[in-house]
Amino acid sequence: MLYAKGLENVVVAETTISAIDGEQGTLLYRGYQAEELAKSADFEDVAYLLLNGQRPTEAEKDDFSTALKTMRPLPDDLKKLLAALPKDLSMMDALRTLISSYTGKEGWPPQQQEAMRLVAIVPTIVAAWANRSCGKDAIEPDPSLNHVANYLYMLTGEKPHAAHIRALSAYLILTAEHGMNASTFAARVIASTEADLRSAICGALGALKGRLHGGAPTGVLELFSDIQTADTSSETLLREKLERGERLMGFGHRVYKTTDPRANALREVLKSLNNQETFLSEAVAIEQLATQLLAEYKPGRQLHANVEYYAAAIMEALRLKPDWFTPTFCVSRVVGWCSHVIEQSQDNRIMRPQQQYCGPKPD
Amino acid sequence: MLYAKGLENVVVAETTISAIDGEQGTLLYRGYQAEELAKSADFEDVAYLLLNGQRPTEAEKDDFSTALKTMRPLPDDLKKLLAALPKDLSMMDALRTLISSYTGKEGWPPQQQEAMRLVAIVPTIVAAWANRSCGKDAIEPDPSLNHVANYLYMLTGEKPHAAHIRALSAYLILTAEHGMNASTFAARVIASTEADLRSAICGALGALKGRLHGGAPTGVLELFSDIQTADTSSETLLREKLERGERLMGFGHRVYKTTDPRANALREVLKSLNNQETFLSEAVAIEQLATQLLAEYKPGRQLHANVEYYAAAIMEALRLKPDWFTPTFCVSRVVGWCSHVIEQSQDNRIMRPQQQYCGPKPD
Repeated sequence: MLYAKGLENVVVAETTISAIDGEQGTLLYRGYQAEELAKSADFEDVAYLLLNGQRPTEAEKDDFSTALKTMRPLPDDLKKLLAALPKDLSMMDALRTLISSYTGKEGWPPQQQEAMRLVAIVPTIVAAWANRSCGKDAIEPDPSLNHVANYLYMLTGEKPHAAHIRALSAYLILTAEHGMNASTFAARVIASTEADLRSAICGALGALKGRLHGGAPTGVLELFSDIQTADTSSETLLREKLERGERLMGFGHRVYKTTDPRANALREVLKSLNNQETFLSEAVAIEQLATQLLAEYKPGRQLHANVEYYAAAIMEALRLKPDWFTPTFCVSRVVGWCSHVIEQSQDNRIMRPQQQYCGPKPD
Repeated sequence: MLYAKGLENVVVAETTISAIDGEQGTLLYRGYQAEELAKSADFEDVAYLLLNGQRPTEAEKDDFSTALKTMRPLPDDLKKLLAALPKDLSMMDALRTLISSYTGKEGWPPQQQEAMRLVAIVPTIVAAWANRSCGKDAIEPDPSLNHVANYLYMLTGEKPHAAHIRALSAYLILTAEHGMNASTFAARVIASTEADLRSAICGALGALKGRLHGGAPTGVLELFSDIQTADTSSETLLREKLERGERLMGFGHRVYKTTDPRANALREVLKSLNNQETFLSEAVAIEQLATQLLAEYKPGRQLHANVEYYAAAIMEALRLKPDWFTPTFCVSRVVGWCSHVIEQSQDNRIMRPQQQYCGPKPD
């Protein structure tokens, strides 16, 4: 009997969904480089790929996109529920509460259609709650816009700039899936009892609320704020931080021992946007500087920008509130969760590990 | 790297909460025999024991019981939400949806007080939904009744018989905790991200919805129904079933290779009730007969009544509807889930296993 607290070295599933190579700094989705997909594909392409195992033909993509569009609007039951929720509920709680009650044609094994319903409705719920929190009316989804553009539109009420759509799309593609993290694992554990897909997603949403998992990139935002408000140069400020022994938030990753492929892809997308956003080009410059300084102060540690760094930069540039960060992560990751639950159902065994009793014995 | 699909042989936690010995047929709660607790203790005693690690003094028990009573009534926010839910939602979905929005003084690590709020509110939500489903008004909790009596009262609107309280209390005590099953494990995975207790419980509720875990004892109820409506004797009917190769539902257990201690305890409690319920004494007689026949038809297999068998008998005798079975299981198991989440928080490491990629490679 192996004692494996945290399960770091235990393989719980064979998967064809994604492959992470931390040494090489690569992330594959169904055999495709996630970096390349972020540069060349739409979110719909990638969602289809992850859920179905192959890239869609033009006709398949049209059908898939159309189906998602028809599934976007909040049904009356969810509108009623949303209006009944206390206004001070966190967005993650509101999202889970609505998903929890969002019944469909469920059964075992879970079907593509159920996954698509969840992928389609999550952005609508997040945006509806964002608007409610600001005292605004919900903005109905716009079927002329694609998944990402429509999400931004529902959040802001304005037709989004192409550069913003491009940046957010890259971010959402790059965070749609990332192996057996705690929320994905939670979803698979729940699904392994043959529970419905929705139940698995509710569990994953809860896991993502944890500080150790889906926490907001507050640290990175604070770094940007420190730099933007400092009297001194960025270099002086970063050197001071490093000399005080502070961690630079947004640098270094548990898995990636070289550059994080997601950060690389986001940097390239941002660079290609022709500096339409001053802040985004500033973020690229700060990253270069910080990477040089980290190599100088912590030689051999291989500390590079991680996906959180550019996620924070994009959120800031798009003026998305920090509270919206984790829910926006759900907009993408729900695709990975659903793909894993479907995969779990295809070769299922209930996940029922052991415990080691070390308590008192009876008298 | 170990591949352990289903995790059967992997220990994920050291625990002092419960110990299951399948060979000896024993179940310990914090070092006490669960069988003995079911015969001699109240649900409040056992909830305190599981949550705190030791049995309460009289004063501690009074305080604990009083606190649970003050936490029983549905707050207005939950009443409003309950009224806004679609009537055809399953009871498990309604329960999870309300728990999902039931914010409190949450943080990390989770506190006793949060656990008590959940333990106190689950029966009220289940009963409120049961009444709503029948078109009845919710019945307010009665602070003159203990936890189990009040649950029965809220379900039925009648002051329950002492024998019914005793039987249900024994059942709820014996199912309050059972080691690292899939729902408890799901709760610990979610909590391991430092998510709040409520998030962990929402995940556990989802796992319990699965057919492989918290499924209703439909099979046992059908067996009872077959016996009660048969033209032949019970013995003839059971022999016919066994000769046709049918499984006798409610007999045999994955873990217990001898008698299930929970079934033993429930049988004894039922016997002590002086046959106030004809059906309960009939269930005991059927068990004896079935055990003899199983030994005859399947020698060496050690097939004994499991907890589901007597759970079904009690549910039937108390006229609890089959739909209420899994939610009633939650009324007890929420204690075990909360105890495990608190234990997880005391020595936490995020649960992040590995996957083995076996998909396509990039071109």
